[in-house]
Amino acid sequence: MDYRARKPGKVYLIGAGPGDPKLLTIKAAEALAESDAIVYDYLVNPEILVHARRGAQLIYAGKHAGEHSLSQSEINRVLIERARSGQTVARLKGGDPFIFGRGGEEAEALVEASVEWEVIPGISSGVAAAAYAGIPLTHRDHASSVAFITGHDGRKLRHEVDWSAAVHAADTLVIFMCAETIARIARSLIANGRAPSTPIALIRWGTYEYQEVYSGTLEEIAETTDGPGRLRIEPPAIAIVGDVVSLREKLRWFGNPALEYSLGELTDREMAVAEV
Amino acid sequence: MDYRARKPGKVYLIGAGPGDPKLLTIKAAEALAESDAIVYDYLVNPEILVHARRGAQLIYAGKHAGEHSLSQSEINRVLIERARSGQTVARLKGGDPFIFGRGGEEAEALVEASVEWEVIPGISSGVAAAAYAGIPLTHRDHASSVAFITGHDGRKLRHEVDWSAAVHAADTLVIFMCAETIARIARSLIANGRAPSTPIALIRWGTYEYQEVYSGTLEEIAETTDGPGRLRIEPPAIAIVGDVVSLREKLRWFGNPALEYSLGELTDREMAVAEV
Repeated sequence: MDYRARKPGKVYLIGAGPGDPKLLTIKAAEALAESDAIVYDYLVNPEILVHARRGAQLIYAGKHAGEHSLSQSEINRVLIERARSGQTVARLKGGDPFIFGRGGEEAEALVEASVEWEVIPGISSGVAAAAYAGIPLTHRDHASSVAFITGHDGRKLRHEVDWSAAVHAADTLVIFMCAETIARIARSLIANGRAPSTPIALIRWGTYEYQEVYSGTLEEIAETTDGPGRLRIEPPAIAIVGDVVSLREKLRWFGNPALEYSLGELTDREMAVAEV
Repeated sequence: MDYRARKPGKVYLIGAGPGDPKLLTIKAAEALAESDAIVYDYLVNPEILVHARRGAQLIYAGKHAGEHSLSQSEINRVLIERARSGQTVARLKGGDPFIFGRGGEEAEALVEASVEWEVIPGISSGVAAAAYAGIPLTHRDHASSVAFITGHDGRKLRHEVDWSAAVHAADTLVIFMCAETIARIARSLIANGRAPSTPIALIRWGTYEYQEVYSGTLEEIAETTDGPGRLRIEPPAIAIVGDVVSLREKLRWFGNPALEYSLGELTDREMAVAEV
């Protein structure tokens, strides 16, 4: 009998951080190197997989809209079965597993199956996208609180966002996964009392070399991104709302200036280009 | 003339993450290895300094209450002068530099002095403390938003927290630096409409082997931590408030059970011990 097959398996729920693969933690890199199988999501930069040991099985779980991918229950089953067979399994997720990562649900499934597990936090995509866009999320002069909110369509969530409450959530709002919903969210924030002139930056592919930043006001993004012939933002996108956004004029340090757009000055041609 | 003295200097604003030194990012470790000087705060685990190259100058900036330490303007001056002399300088802060880390202010000072700089995000202490206490900050069934709020005494802040708004901030609240203020904050949250039975976990020294967790309800923490002969929480402490806290009964995976306290069951003896 093979000794290895008898050792108890284990699952690491790992935050891969955002796009920049150097923002992986040392702990995550070590866990990847130790794993027999790595189950990874669409938004994980594949460069991170260089930390896998030779011979490790790489399992793509997908989660990209419209493509074939594993369902949540299939993912849970893969993690549990492999751990039960004695494997060390890395479950690699973009950003942080416990911030809009469904890591809590996977952890619950592992506990229910009596599988040993551990969580390794990652740099949240919202934190990193803001930092690489030159936006401090808090600042003694501008913001003493920051809220992370999902921009996902409420109809797909069991616990919906109440935007009339979220408007007062914090000085700075970070809205995750909001590419398709940002116009509606911006109008909702204005309707519930945020000034139409509140600064907003919408960041696509944050921390990647090809990071895009669209900046302007709530009013401008509501007008620019809504309806036919207007700017269509494709995922992945994160929005930062609040006074701190204005600091980026001074603090921007990363990214290609040709991929920075001012919402108030977008031409029809740029809208068409941005749609590609 | 020494060639080295003529190369332009640079400052890295680096998030050291929380206590667990393995939660440092690869990018941060590489920046530390490249730096001529490292200016680090009280809440940075000194084990992280093993990444410094031989001969690098280690400068302690303090920030521990009541001890001699550098003022913010002295820190800014050290960073600027060293960078101007051609050094690569690592400014190492606990958690993330742009979440209650005053990284924004330091970046502004560097920009004003025309010093090249870059920010390297770190795992926020609030995210890590929650993860190591077994608390997912968001969860499809319980929380679609999470707010990070400073628990620092408002009188010391230029931009104060409005607790009547913060109460509705998000499904989950993460209150940083709240050791001395948590009783007052808990009462304020109840007065403004959060149920007295809302679960809370107060985490001291999150992610360290000696991490302590005090759990109970808003009402219990208000009663237990206030006044003479009651539990006195010493910094550093972070509180998590909201339904997700109840998940830790199922999801706790880290820490010494002897350092976990139920606020409803604390004896006078434990209060005295906890004070030591």
